[in-house]
Amino acid sequence: MAVYTDVSAEDLTRFLSDYDIGELLSYKGIAEGVENSNFLVHTGAGNFILTLYEKRVAEQDLPFFLALMEHLAARGITCPQPVKNRQGGMLGRIAGRPAAIVTFLEGMWHRRPNAAHCAGVGEALARLHLAGADFAMKRPNALSVENWRPLFEHAGARGDSVRPGLCNEIVTELDMLERAWPRGLPQGVIHADLFPDNVFFLGDHLSGLIDFYFACTDTLAYDVAICLNAWCFEPDHAFNVTKGRALLSGYGKMRALSADERAALPMLARGAAMRFLLTRLVDWLAVPEGAMVRPKDPLEYHRKLRFHQSVQSAADYGI
Amino acid sequence: MAVYTDVSAEDLTRFLSDYDIGELLSYKGIAEGVENSNFLVHTGAGNFILTLYEKRVAEQDLPFFLALMEHLAARGITCPQPVKNRQGGMLGRIAGRPAAIVTFLEGMWHRRPNAAHCAGVGEALARLHLAGADFAMKRPNALSVENWRPLFEHAGARGDSVRPGLCNEIVTELDMLERAWPRGLPQGVIHADLFPDNVFFLGDHLSGLIDFYFACTDTLAYDVAICLNAWCFEPDHAFNVTKGRALLSGYGKMRALSADERAALPMLARGAAMRFLLTRLVDWLAVPEGAMVRPKDPLEYHRKLRFHQSVQSAADYGI
Repeated sequence: MAVYTDVSAEDLTRFLSDYDIGELLSYKGIAEGVENSNFLVHTGAGNFILTLYEKRVAEQDLPFFLALMEHLAARGITCPQPVKNRQGGMLGRIAGRPAAIVTFLEGMWHRRPNAAHCAGVGEALARLHLAGADFAMKRPNALSVENWRPLFEHAGARGDSVRPGLCNEIVTELDMLERAWPRGLPQGVIHADLFPDNVFFLGDHLSGLIDFYFACTDTLAYDVAICLNAWCFEPDHAFNVTKGRALLSGYGKMRALSADERAALPMLARGAAMRFLLTRLVDWLAVPEGAMVRPKDPLEYHRKLRFHQSVQSAADYGI
Repeated sequence: MAVYTDVSAEDLTRFLSDYDIGELLSYKGIAEGVENSNFLVHTGAGNFILTLYEKRVAEQDLPFFLALMEHLAARGITCPQPVKNRQGGMLGRIAGRPAAIVTFLEGMWHRRPNAAHCAGVGEALARLHLAGADFAMKRPNALSVENWRPLFEHAGARGDSVRPGLCNEIVTELDMLERAWPRGLPQGVIHADLFPDNVFFLGDHLSGLIDFYFACTDTLAYDVAICLNAWCFEPDHAFNVTKGRALLSGYGKMRALSADERAALPMLARGAAMRFLLTRLVDWLAVPEGAMVRPKDPLEYHRKLRFHQSVQSAADYGI
């Protein structure tokens, strides 16, 4: 839950005077997203989301994210659309932070997605990959294989305080991942963080994708591997192959995975588990003892990693 | 900022099926209120607020709060109105918590209210006192003069860790307040927490009052004293007599303070400062060292208390 920077009514009124979206009627900080401050803004023209970009989002990346949302929306992907100000710009500044107004998407995210939801997200992910194919801008993934070891070194030996032996396990896995990481697979725009809280449904119909602030240019099948991790495990950390099959066949309906991509899936899934294990570990260790804020459990991804290590082939994911 | 209890789409859909407010379209946890969990809910019928009552609100008090909002709204006070379910009830249960749906109020609260806003809140407070006059239910104030010493004893000697000598100062002041607390002044429904974040404006027009979860039956002029504390000090903790005068004359336009009430105002203001000093002190000391959540500064109210101790008569507040 996140409102890191408060906004005054005066500042917001001044900010909105540059936009054609009517008079400000109300705004509330919303407890969603962990990187930025988000406000639900109600104006004469309807509901909008105001996002203030906090320190963990690099300001030079914002034009990529905003142009990508505009590009995808123009190609039929239901995602927030940046609203342009009177100068045609999509980026402003409020309370000392870069900020943008985007359209509001109806829908709810599912705390416990079922197989039908997994099929929906698979299909939506493939549509996103296809719609991104002619997006001209590039952004390297700042959290890909070559970034994992520096991230791990940042956490350092303290990892063993979370689970004895964890550091050794991570080093062994990183050695393997760096050596064997799949190269040469189809690249393109990936969402890179398509967790259930970033996918809205109205009833069983997928109504939109949000939060493109990890989007980047990387291996398309790696995005599929992130979704397998995020959507297809049960609360007891067991992999649900019915959900895996639903997600992969939803994806395949729109974009067929090549034989190389399928063969690489177990390795990509191990990498995806490592990426979230490491960022969660760093966040976990950054929180002072006894704090009331509890970051996400890194060991959830340790257990997922263990599962992927046991996988023989993509068939184990249901493909 | 507060979402203590998360709500699933399934649970909320089931909860709303008991209400005539259309289909659920979206809901977001909002970062407002410190006692309860609040969600902005968008349905086919518009925007609503869903409140889940957390442990600090006593369940047996909820009928008082909800009936009060209904009573006040029926008398022209713009405040959230509880929405009735198909059985005519205003209280339900979701995610293991008592919960209610209330209407959404447009408007923004002012982080830095000016004298015109103070006049507005004074007038609205008097209107609230008048509208509450025929409200049949009673609820004793759980944070009035007789509750302050137990609250202080809960914080105990650790108060001196916040400011050396603070405990002695509090004891001396409590001795005096318990001895000299004004009795026999006009009683009625008071809001008891009418801080700037509970008062909405559209432009300079006061558009509504929210958060009635400290409302109770107590001395009306004590509510005025709480507002003097909450609205009429500058960020440097200096009392702004222009704002005090605006608030008191706004109040007086609707309900004249008697000579007794005016004479009691400095003592009531000292009591109000003590009440917020003590609850903030307890909250401050309850937070573990190094936590990322920073509760409100108790010493702000220590400085306000010092000011009220220097006051000669209500004239110093601008009356």
